[in-house]
Amino acid sequence: MTVKKVTIIGLGLIGGSLAWALKKSGLVGEVFGVDLDSEAVAYALKEKMIDAGSVNLEVGVEDSDIVVIATYVGIIPRIAKTVASGASAKTIITDVGSVKRKIVEELESALPPHLHFVGGHPIAGTERSGVWAADFNLFQGKRCILTPNSKTRPEPIAKVKNIWESVGATVFTMDAETHDRIFGFVSHLPHVVAYALVNSIASQKQPPNMFDFGGGGLRDYTRIAASSPEMWSDIFLTNRGNVLESIQEFKKALEKIEGLIEKNNSEDLREELNRFLNSRQNEDR
Amino acid sequence: MTVKKVTIIGLGLIGGSLAWALKKSGLVGEVFGVDLDSEAVAYALKEKMIDAGSVNLEVGVEDSDIVVIATYVGIIPRIAKTVASGASAKTIITDVGSVKRKIVEELESALPPHLHFVGGHPIAGTERSGVWAADFNLFQGKRCILTPNSKTRPEPIAKVKNIWESVGATVFTMDAETHDRIFGFVSHLPHVVAYALVNSIASQKQPPNMFDFGGGGLRDYTRIAASSPEMWSDIFLTNRGNVLESIQEFKKALEKIEGLIEKNNSEDLREELNRFLNSRQNEDR
Repeated sequence: MTVKKVTIIGLGLIGGSLAWALKKSGLVGEVFGVDLDSEAVAYALKEKMIDAGSVNLEVGVEDSDIVVIATYVGIIPRIAKTVASGASAKTIITDVGSVKRKIVEELESALPPHLHFVGGHPIAGTERSGVWAADFNLFQGKRCILTPNSKTRPEPIAKVKNIWESVGATVFTMDAETHDRIFGFVSHLPHVVAYALVNSIASQKQPPNMFDFGGGGLRDYTRIAASSPEMWSDIFLTNRGNVLESIQEFKKALEKIEGLIEKNNSEDLREELNRFLNSRQNEDR
Repeated sequence: MTVKKVTIIGLGLIGGSLAWALKKSGLVGEVFGVDLDSEAVAYALKEKMIDAGSVNLEVGVEDSDIVVIATYVGIIPRIAKTVASGASAKTIITDVGSVKRKIVEELESALPPHLHFVGGHPIAGTERSGVWAADFNLFQGKRCILTPNSKTRPEPIAKVKNIWESVGATVFTMDAETHDRIFGFVSHLPHVVAYALVNSIASQKQPPNMFDFGGGGLRDYTRIAASSPEMWSDIFLTNRGNVLESIQEFKKALEKIEGLIEKNNSEDLREELNRFLNSRQNEDR
């Protein structure tokens, strides 16, 4: 047992799954859970995802080795500051936010020097949300990105890495800017596009119930677009610059295909539809 | 046994699966398969998907009750005309093309009056293709659309319906224009968008290998965009007007979301991301 106490703030899909997985891992002496929703805390206690819990942010933080903030990204800096005011000198603060630069920058200047913050982002999750969807296997075989900067000390990084490895994840590190650019394209853009696609179909009045005729392809979009609008609007706005850039790049690619359909250019269209598959095959060589 | 002989032209995923399912159904005396690729015919014979086969379009058609054309949509009219020249007066010709108006219109004027054509479109398929991906359960619980017009006689419609029901599909009928508008939105547009999305990411040089960091959402897009570029460019061009209209509608929905991100308008953005879920809930009431 190498970690005495971990506190997880925000018992949603990610926070609840992490708490539960840490309990099962045997690495942590006590897993403490905090959520504003007393029903979420009660459920996590009942299912033995956590050892103890609270609806109050100030409780359970002061003697914790590691505090994991697993709330919506927009409020992570504010919560981190509250945690910092109650935490001991040895406490490491980390998070699971899908956007990193804004959080890392804001906390670097705001946190007292004795506290260590290590940005984190597990690449896991589904369109479901809430502690009721928690799964102690959620991080098995998944990736988790840590975004330390040049000032982050090696020991806190190693401790946060240890946490994620104990629940089955492989840890990568990169700077926060690179992280936000990558996830703007590979995660945030696919969500923007899925919301736009289902909205465009929902706008069609004639014939009604078009969705009834969708096959496998459309089902993937409706599943993605069933993700929490609150969480994703928060992510899009927190990573605004990168998301807007990825939308521009996407529109260019879309208009290329659109133009070839307009021109009835069968040969170039085939080639354009093959571009992604070709790029993957070249990589495999 | 109500049908003596069915000939399937094009032993791909759909044609192969239909042949195999008809064999298993016991409804059909003989299932005859035609494909230009002798390996596909040999494989279908070896796996007992068909009773007999040929690489020659003229063979196996003359004594067939129903001929199912299961090739790419672009060449269906041409193949139907060739079939017509060798078929007997009682032969019913149908197809499985994803686009209907162009095919139905062209064949109405081109086919001799004694021949019956009934347009068909099973809503089944995956990103895989070829007879090697065939599955005799592919149509179980799926929908199949038939697109007769006012001149199509009831008997041929009933016979084609019978074929699809015998392999587990539920049959709907609608006019070809409505079909093409619906599938422009619910099937062709999702493919256009998936190709554009993966292309936009493949275009990014920095950092390389962005695809390595994609989660579940991106995986759905890469799966859809792994569909045959030959087949889909053919579909997009055959349903050109509807596909272009659906792209316009999609761009409007995308630019609405983009504008709200630009303006940092959190409240309206949340509402816009909720629009599809709301429209579904209203329908359920």
